[in-house]
Amino acid sequence: MKFTRFRKKNEEAVLQGIVNGNEIKQIEGDMFSDWRETETVFHLDVVELLVPFAPRHIIGIGANYVAKEEDKPSELPKIPVFFYKPLSSAIPTGQPIVIPSAINEVKFESELAVVIGKEASNISEEEVTSYIFGYTVANDVTAPQFFREDGHWAIGKSYDTFTPIGPFVETELDPDKVVVEAYLNGEKKQDSPVSLMIVSMRKMISYLSKVMTLQPGDVILTGSPLGAEFMKDGDEIVCEIAGIGKLRNSVKQG
Amino acid sequence: MKFTRFRKKNEEAVLQGIVNGNEIKQIEGDMFSDWRETETVFHLDVVELLVPFAPRHIIGIGANYVAKEEDKPSELPKIPVFFYKPLSSAIPTGQPIVIPSAINEVKFESELAVVIGKEASNISEEEVTSYIFGYTVANDVTAPQFFREDGHWAIGKSYDTFTPIGPFVETELDPDKVVVEAYLNGEKKQDSPVSLMIVSMRKMISYLSKVMTLQPGDVILTGSPLGAEFMKDGDEIVCEIAGIGKLRNSVKQG
Repeated sequence: MKFTRFRKKNEEAVLQGIVNGNEIKQIEGDMFSDWRETETVFHLDVVELLVPFAPRHIIGIGANYVAKEEDKPSELPKIPVFFYKPLSSAIPTGQPIVIPSAINEVKFESELAVVIGKEASNISEEEVTSYIFGYTVANDVTAPQFFREDGHWAIGKSYDTFTPIGPFVETELDPDKVVVEAYLNGEKKQDSPVSLMIVSMRKMISYLSKVMTLQPGDVILTGSPLGAEFMKDGDEIVCEIAGIGKLRNSVKQG
Repeated sequence: MKFTRFRKKNEEAVLQGIVNGNEIKQIEGDMFSDWRETETVFHLDVVELLVPFAPRHIIGIGANYVAKEEDKPSELPKIPVFFYKPLSSAIPTGQPIVIPSAINEVKFESELAVVIGKEASNISEEEVTSYIFGYTVANDVTAPQFFREDGHWAIGKSYDTFTPIGPFVETELDPDKVVVEAYLNGEKKQDSPVSLMIVSMRKMISYLSKVMTLQPGDVILTGSPLGAEFMKDGDEIVCEIAGIGKLRNSVKQG
């Protein structure tokens, strides 16, 4: 099922529902655990889509794809490069990515994003999928000009609007068959299967669960394939995963 | 006023109140904006203190103190070393810090922690204090063994129990007159005035507000003075700021 959050145009209240074709059936309750359908149905045309779930932590992993199978390192990193992005950076499909005023370009990074559905502490790789609520698409927008030379990335990934997420959370996807794509102004720039990840999705979530207790709403951005490029004012970036949908954002200069 | 959250021993419900001597007067509503006193008063002895407010983001800054005024660098860093700690790392005074099983010591870092009370975007240094709800003490527990050589710190600061916060949030403190102390098994290890910060509290919050929209509950750990040391199983660490209180945690091996 495809879950999302939305509001009626020009109204404040945050609603949630299940998407079916061009319609959203409104639901009530806790999306992750205890919800029920209402009788209310909206056409997608009359709603504004929001970030499709309420995120709690946004966790990313750095440099996690190779160009081809043969390029995989013989040993996995002992300590993967994890980082956090603030909730204030999350925007839904349709809202513009704003380039900080001090610079004039930022990078897109299309990624498979995994939404945790149940509290997870110290779980094995084999257990990971039973703790997953669903899968969505994220764009880990990055301003390398705000990276420090000594490796600290936080500022360069933290600006408001730097984490488009959506359009929907799909609960019935096979995470091993995903292909991650990105289109800049219609031209394909990223196109890799998740099998080219260095640290697999199950491995990284198992590892994280041994560090921190994961909770419903925690979302793990699993890294971006080769092909990320800079975007500038006026561009349109579409991050796409077949089966989830298109995450579409324009870019504007701040 | 000293705000805190707490629960009655052996009960689940999270309560909040204002501390006065040995008593807590329960309050209702939103601690940051719209609360009122109830008639209920508890003795501190019959409650379990919780993290004193509901944190939203925990943001830290690295290497931010000098030993003496003359050591201050002539130029401030262009991009300060900010980092995030997950909410799952937060524990109140009185709960044990757990050393990850793969290692046998972790560092304490006593810090002044600033709790944001109002949405803050793009604010000047002069405006910062009007966006602050109050001040508390934090212990930015750190396992340098989980730092990567290339500078990525996230894992080494993210373990469950790695961010003791409390005991209270004091709203009426002069942030320029704070002295940050730490006592390991009763012996003084840290003792520095906040005037020895490299990036001042107002500068760092103004800088952050130009990156991300800060929200009520965001807490900024302003860096730790010289003198942080390792702690091991059986130790007790007390981080203290006069006017706020003592943040007391035992240490146990995981």
